[in-house]
Amino acid sequence: MAQIDYPEAVRGLVLQLKRLPGIGAKSAERIAIWLLQRGGEVVTPLSQALVAAGELVRPCEVCGFFMNRGEDCSVCEAVDRDAAQLCVVEQPTDVLPLERSGAFRGFYHVLGGRISPLEHVGPEDLRIDGLVRRLKEGHFSEVILALGSDVEGEATANYLVDVLSATNVSVTRLAQGLPVGGGLDSADELTLLRALQGRRALSPPREGQGGG
Amino acid sequence: MAQIDYPEAVRGLVLQLKRLPGIGAKSAERIAIWLLQRGGEVVTPLSQALVAAGELVRPCEVCGFFMNRGEDCSVCEAVDRDAAQLCVVEQPTDVLPLERSGAFRGFYHVLGGRISPLEHVGPEDLRIDGLVRRLKEGHFSEVILALGSDVEGEATANYLVDVLSATNVSVTRLAQGLPVGGGLDSADELTLLRALQGRRALSPPREGQGGG
Repeated sequence: MAQIDYPEAVRGLVLQLKRLPGIGAKSAERIAIWLLQRGGEVVTPLSQALVAAGELVRPCEVCGFFMNRGEDCSVCEAVDRDAAQLCVVEQPTDVLPLERSGAFRGFYHVLGGRISPLEHVGPEDLRIDGLVRRLKEGHFSEVILALGSDVEGEATANYLVDVLSATNVSVTRLAQGLPVGGGLDSADELTLLRALQGRRALSPPREGQGGG
Repeated sequence: MAQIDYPEAVRGLVLQLKRLPGIGAKSAERIAIWLLQRGGEVVTPLSQALVAAGELVRPCEVCGFFMNRGEDCSVCEAVDRDAAQLCVVEQPTDVLPLERSGAFRGFYHVLGGRISPLEHVGPEDLRIDGLVRRLKEGHFSEVILALGSDVEGEATANYLVDVLSATNVSVTRLAQGLPVGGGLDSADELTLLRALQGRRALSPPREGQGGG
């Protein structure tokens, strides 16, 4: 006897949803059912948004962030930013949190990932050639590596420090330490080690000590 | 100075993805970026699947499961199933796990939710009238309440027992107890209570005791 199953079109939708990152088989099924129960009211705007984004948006060839097809990149062409600083991030999603922090006012370069032998991502898969080209063109004096502080982020940062030593630009990296609002008990040993190594002087330095 | 933000079409896509159940702001952003980086190869089949499912599929007016528009419901019209048993579930997604268990061979009735005052879902929002109508029509002798064993599932089951007492059909409910493969240490107190209350005799009953 045949088991009851979803109609073909429902199975097709579940299959496509399951391909999305972070969506497992159960979530895909739940989302598909949710969409179908609500019908056109939610399905139509979602499919329209997909088509519109797919047609209108493409990555900027210079910075790697998103831009509207046929227009200038609003990030690269911004006139009110600090032309001396370039911030290197892994993904386009990393740009917005940095913007929200309000602490960075320069330009961005999206690598498109990080070096990860386990995921078969090597330096040649990242937008590193374009980064070197931008730095050789001249006006940047500092490149800030805003990469993740996990193993892959470390490896990518180390690789970039090597490659960028050929350019005349100072390379810096985001500080590692305690996250704001987190107690010592919630920090792992490596975070504590980095927090200690990167400690700052709060009182004026005494004789014979370096400044903070 | 204006903060850098995604193009309009990307924000629109993130907004639509954020409406999906179980997808938060961060997941929506990650999925949107993932879709845009892969482009038509994943965006096109997903939007096609959405449109196809939205156009082809609708809920059966009798059982509440999905059917293809303009065809007979493959669940209600199945000829090789047990016409004496009707299984009541909360959602269409509950049907497939029951089918996979292989333990049920009757027909289904999808309520479309469960009674939950907190979520403003009352009996009038569920497909209960249709359930009573099906049972009064005659051929079912047992209705199995396959509802969740949480507070809302309990409330819905209790309500249904009341309503269905007017029909001439025996009402049963899924057993509660230890999940298969779970030790006693991983079961909560209420599950243990239910498991004890529902215990089965393994040896033949002694004099003066009831059978299992």
